[in-house]
Amino acid sequence: MPVSPLAPPSFPKVPSIGGVQFAVAASGMRYSGRHDLFLAVLPPSTTVGGVFTQSLCPSAPVEWCKDRIRGESARALLCNAGNANAFTGSAGFEVVGSCANVVADLFSLSPDEVFLASTGVIGEPFDSSVITDHMAALADGLGPPNPDMWEQAANAIRTTDTFPKGFYSRIGDSESYIAGIAKGSGMIAPSMATMLAFIFTDLEISQRELQAFTERSVDKSFNSITVDSDTSTSDTVLTFATGESGNSIESHRLDFEVALDEVMLGLAHQIVRDGEGATKFIEITVTGAEDDVAAKAIAKSVANSPLVKTAVAAEDANWGRIVMAVGKAGELAERDKLKIWIGDELVAEQGMQSATYDESRASAHLAGQDISIQVDVGIGNGDSTIWTCDLTHGYIDINAGYRS
Amino acid sequence: MPVSPLAPPSFPKVPSIGGVQFAVAASGMRYSGRHDLFLAVLPPSTTVGGVFTQSLCPSAPVEWCKDRIRGESARALLCNAGNANAFTGSAGFEVVGSCANVVADLFSLSPDEVFLASTGVIGEPFDSSVITDHMAALADGLGPPNPDMWEQAANAIRTTDTFPKGFYSRIGDSESYIAGIAKGSGMIAPSMATMLAFIFTDLEISQRELQAFTERSVDKSFNSITVDSDTSTSDTVLTFATGESGNSIESHRLDFEVALDEVMLGLAHQIVRDGEGATKFIEITVTGAEDDVAAKAIAKSVANSPLVKTAVAAEDANWGRIVMAVGKAGELAERDKLKIWIGDELVAEQGMQSATYDESRASAHLAGQDISIQVDVGIGNGDSTIWTCDLTHGYIDINAGYRS
Repeated sequence: MPVSPLAPPSFPKVPSIGGVQFAVAASGMRYSGRHDLFLAVLPPSTTVGGVFTQSLCPSAPVEWCKDRIRGESARALLCNAGNANAFTGSAGFEVVGSCANVVADLFSLSPDEVFLASTGVIGEPFDSSVITDHMAALADGLGPPNPDMWEQAANAIRTTDTFPKGFYSRIGDSESYIAGIAKGSGMIAPSMATMLAFIFTDLEISQRELQAFTERSVDKSFNSITVDSDTSTSDTVLTFATGESGNSIESHRLDFEVALDEVMLGLAHQIVRDGEGATKFIEITVTGAEDDVAAKAIAKSVANSPLVKTAVAAEDANWGRIVMAVGKAGELAERDKLKIWIGDELVAEQGMQSATYDESRASAHLAGQDISIQVDVGIGNGDSTIWTCDLTHGYIDINAGYRS
Repeated sequence: MPVSPLAPPSFPKVPSIGGVQFAVAASGMRYSGRHDLFLAVLPPSTTVGGVFTQSLCPSAPVEWCKDRIRGESARALLCNAGNANAFTGSAGFEVVGSCANVVADLFSLSPDEVFLASTGVIGEPFDSSVITDHMAALADGLGPPNPDMWEQAANAIRTTDTFPKGFYSRIGDSESYIAGIAKGSGMIAPSMATMLAFIFTDLEISQRELQAFTERSVDKSFNSITVDSDTSTSDTVLTFATGESGNSIESHRLDFEVALDEVMLGLAHQIVRDGEGATKFIEITVTGAEDDVAAKAIAKSVANSPLVKTAVAAEDANWGRIVMAVGKAGELAERDKLKIWIGDELVAEQGMQSATYDESRASAHLAGQDISIQVDVGIGNGDSTIWTCDLTHGYIDINAGYRS
């Protein structure tokens, strides 16, 4: 699979985060010749915040993590790529328990301090030994992650991703950092395309506050992107705070919020830029809706419309499809108050095509890679921004072509 | 565009319906060398029932019809293909008014007895004369529709449809009939792919009862199909009852209900069979849901999932994608109570792959053209059936290729 045309030029030079150790290994459970296991080991008193798939049929690792996310400390994270361990019945829960126990024994932890994530095909049973057999090798390889190891970790959790995803930010002007890796390309699509993100900081934050920050930031980033409207059984975002920098959230609250948003949005945008078959990165902004919830519903309706997405792929300023998507969202809207822009070009207002509309200007914008669509509903103060990609033959190739 | 591989072998031999007269003409507003205007003229005391798009940005003709659907009689229907007259501002309403007035003058009717429908590109203004200039020719051509004229009418309302759609049924063993035509292929998708259906019977039915029958039957047919989850600004279903057979609904209530369901479902299935790029006709049945509304939401979630649709296109028994779609529907479900079948093959139960599952049998079913997917939620008595088609390169070709 060729690298997405929307990929960043290179993987960032991510710094190590105080107290965090990484290792990767190759289990061969599905892929050959590449790493597919990622282990992070974290110092005592590390806290964790997490957000998980809203699917009512979540994977066994998601259920494991949900049950433990409010615990006092998180000491390890183990992730595998190739098998989602979803819809695998009681055997799937045994795999999760075995993996947590092996990690706990190796590092003298409680199993409840071990967090797990799996991505891959749904409904395929597997033996836990395919993972646990490699634990000793993982333990041997552990070390503070240099930039190269960050990239290796980001590669180890890939499935259909065409490039590894990483992002970091300094917390204000402090010596504390926050950094993370992610995977996902058929956003929130199962089989080989779950969305996972693991974020680490050396700031000291209570579990309760870290959870609140994580939920807030996910809502504006990972929960504001869509590739194909499908939702995985396994989506997982985990934020770990080691406290090793000696800096506490108390004196860095605003800076941390900004840095966490930056990292989550940076990773979320990379997932969209690796959207299956994507050739355009699309930002959809809705203003003037009844409230923020309505604005997000309208933005998602536009973002998920196959007709809008194919029109953008074709660089066709077929704005009637945007009207259609607003109209079907089911949120309060009045045709005659709507305004629609493609790039800076006002295409429609007062229930009809704008008098100043020039299709050549809209088409010129659509010829670029970064596309902006704006809808002003004109009835309230709700706003929302959603990011998505276009829908092309590449999506069909990837999803109708084979079961990876 | 080649005819859909799922098309019926031929257009049915639809009988004439007492009192109904048809005519077609070519306006040249968008297409050349084909009819794009369809006029039906109906006898006094004809009643009408109608169901329209739920879009909050409906077309001018939809607003016109909605305002008049509860009127005492319906005497004419005028439909054009090529321009949807949607999002065309006050000019669009003037076009609708002009067209209704010209038809009314010509046949000595009230404009409120004239029903209108338009399908085509959204947001493109047009002069009403492009239609009204052809009214005299239409009037000259009027006559009771023979089978050939039914097919001509079905052709005149086509946009991206690859075959004309017609269906009829006898009402019990009476001499009364019900028959209709429809168009649509990117179901409920705008631009050139609105869903329209016009149905005629010579039974005598009050407006009030006809409206109730129409709503009931639409819910089980046209509102139970999906091609791409998009909703047109212009969707319109109109049922006209002339009463000319002398038979009243009083003694044929059950037979009429059955016949109306048959015609609506027959036309709805043809729309799915002409789904843009379709190579498979998919029936999704959900049983055991919390209630019928939940069952329909789950069935639609499966039917609209691009990953399920691409898996069916690839004849890939990737049933994890069905689990995913059930899980994301947001309706009550418990992983361990779910059962899933592909054709007759039980693929999953008790939270995992079925012990008796044989992928080769599921794959053999998927190799056919008519695909059945069944989900038993296992928690209640709600059920629902939804029909859709697969998602292929053909859909991208049609919708990213050009603005027709």
